[in-house]
Amino acid sequence: MPSLFSRFTQDSDPDPASPARAGHFDTAHGRVLTPAFMPVGTQGTVKGLTPRQLEEIGPQVILGNTYHLGLRPGDGLVRDLGGLHAFMGWDGPILTDSGGFQVFSLAGLRRIKEEGVTFQSHIDGSTHFLSPERSLDIQRNLGSDIVMALDECPPGRMERGPLELSMARTTRWLARCRAHPLGEHQGLFAINQGGTHLDLRRRHLDEILDLDARTPFQGLAVGGLSVGEPKEAMNEVLAAFVRLLPADRPRYLMGVGTPEDLLFGMEQGVDLFDCVLPTREARHGSLLTSRGRIKIKNARHRDSREPLDPHCNCYTCRTFTRAYLHHLFRVGELLALTLNSIHNLSYTVGLTRAARQAMLGKNFPEFARRTRENWNQEES
Amino acid sequence: MPSLFSRFTQDSDPDPASPARAGHFDTAHGRVLTPAFMPVGTQGTVKGLTPRQLEEIGPQVILGNTYHLGLRPGDGLVRDLGGLHAFMGWDGPILTDSGGFQVFSLAGLRRIKEEGVTFQSHIDGSTHFLSPERSLDIQRNLGSDIVMALDECPPGRMERGPLELSMARTTRWLARCRAHPLGEHQGLFAINQGGTHLDLRRRHLDEILDLDARTPFQGLAVGGLSVGEPKEAMNEVLAAFVRLLPADRPRYLMGVGTPEDLLFGMEQGVDLFDCVLPTREARHGSLLTSRGRIKIKNARHRDSREPLDPHCNCYTCRTFTRAYLHHLFRVGELLALTLNSIHNLSYTVGLTRAARQAMLGKNFPEFARRTRENWNQEES
Repeated sequence: MPSLFSRFTQDSDPDPASPARAGHFDTAHGRVLTPAFMPVGTQGTVKGLTPRQLEEIGPQVILGNTYHLGLRPGDGLVRDLGGLHAFMGWDGPILTDSGGFQVFSLAGLRRIKEEGVTFQSHIDGSTHFLSPERSLDIQRNLGSDIVMALDECPPGRMERGPLELSMARTTRWLARCRAHPLGEHQGLFAINQGGTHLDLRRRHLDEILDLDARTPFQGLAVGGLSVGEPKEAMNEVLAAFVRLLPADRPRYLMGVGTPEDLLFGMEQGVDLFDCVLPTREARHGSLLTSRGRIKIKNARHRDSREPLDPHCNCYTCRTFTRAYLHHLFRVGELLALTLNSIHNLSYTVGLTRAARQAMLGKNFPEFARRTRENWNQEES
Repeated sequence: MPSLFSRFTQDSDPDPASPARAGHFDTAHGRVLTPAFMPVGTQGTVKGLTPRQLEEIGPQVILGNTYHLGLRPGDGLVRDLGGLHAFMGWDGPILTDSGGFQVFSLAGLRRIKEEGVTFQSHIDGSTHFLSPERSLDIQRNLGSDIVMALDECPPGRMERGPLELSMARTTRWLARCRAHPLGEHQGLFAINQGGTHLDLRRRHLDEILDLDARTPFQGLAVGGLSVGEPKEAMNEVLAAFVRLLPADRPRYLMGVGTPEDLLFGMEQGVDLFDCVLPTREARHGSLLTSRGRIKIKNARHRDSREPLDPHCNCYTCRTFTRAYLHHLFRVGELLALTLNSIHNLSYTVGLTRAARQAMLGKNFPEFARRTRENWNQEES
């Protein structure tokens, strides 16, 4: 591997008025420029896109899913075939989640103990076991660049009492993750929990930093948000909490990806984001543009010669009219899903890329203001 | 338009031992090198492929469908948007069928009269009318390079008596097509019918050539084969009939596309083929290789590091292992459909391209022998 995981370096001048920051860190599969939105490739593919189409979109990192890939095709097989990068034909940085989020979502099909979680596959009902060590073994087999520690993922409205017990377990699991070997090119990210309670977030961060003082984590993630809690409560805790995370490590806000949430997160100093939203909405014909969301099925696009977004330089916008995209979606053609996904990811990755440029040019507040103003101009 | 439709020119040396021939003709959207397999883009897209992916595969011509596009989005709209080439982002030659095959397949939903066919849309049951003139108007609005005359499409096992009546109507319709105006860049192809009866085929050809003597057709097609009749009967009539078609016009065998049928057709002197088979089989995980058909879902591909076809230079074969394609197909990922379609079309288009090279190099018989020998080597 060409290089080990580097610390985060801030590229933009520190601004006392704003925690927003542009920066970078290095992985064995290349430098990651932040802020960055990371497309989700759950089963070893970003749905509907070839790696070549993905390269043109230009994400800094893409995600793979430990739960799904561990079950099918199996992490041992992926390892034997040269790792996830070779398997899926993507040579850039890959982050794998821990599998926890999926396993904890299997209500009724899973049993949580201190050792780990016993769960039944959503595919065939077969019984499996996920522990901090097993999650890391899978991720080591997959060979991702960024490995996520296994945390307990509490629902968005969990009461304070059970949440504290859950956080304590996450901390114990994090210690076990830290003690478990990884590939030498791999960096481990810790996940902070605490719901929308700032005091719990701070307490949990202290516990993480105790572990960090012995062996540093390569990054810190904010988990357990965007999981059903009120948007205002999420924003409130982010506004107060993100700036408390160590400045020399990338900060990753998990599961967040609407344009509004990306802007808000970047304003708080978040460096990395992921979300299935851009590709999922694309498949449902909901397209993100500089002027707001467009439902491409809407009859007003039927005879439109306009590109989806005149300010977008993606393959879809350079090549096709809204009328054509409307037609493809309406008649149920496969190509609609691909072209829509290319655009929505280009928009979302492009938003973080443009934000980075604005931060480097010291005009991010103006960029954010203008982006918000233009958003929701479209009638849909 | 840069050039009008040209006559067919043979590029290979005439061979008394074989009617197989390499040649070319020119359209306003470029030269067509033959023999050529033409991928089907029914609804204004070759299913699952971007025009860019299609360009890399390199078909000489692609098909659009008059029935489908006339209903959705409507040929008037396509015309207003600059024609089918601009609409779908494909700048190469396009052939449009007449819509007859689809309309005649709507058993129970259509009524045939001398004037034309009244039918009900498969989409919403609305009533429409297709006549020779209407079919050509749709195709003129679509702006295709090759326009197909509207014929009556009899089923593969129609009795001789009704077949003769049907052929007579096709001839009368052909005369109406010939009299109807087209765009000046468009060429009209006549369609020969007659089932598997050589004498009927010859008689119908004579009728076509009577019309042709007044105003020449730009090409002649063999229709009404590969529609349920026994394979031997089809091959028998092709072997005797194709060589009777005028040598200075492209010869198009409609609806034929298995590797075996392409080889046989080329041996008889066919220049153009089309079929949904390569893309349809791709979507079902049945992949065409130089060693035969592969069912990619088969467990023996699960851990295979091999490309699908080591002799294939397509994006899929250059980039991915069978194990990855097996995984994508098994978990139902969209990308499976795209990668499989890229390969199957590359194989099929490549087969006709390689055959052309072999004809130019005077070793087509050897090429055909070797291709057949290698076919069916795979266990599947």
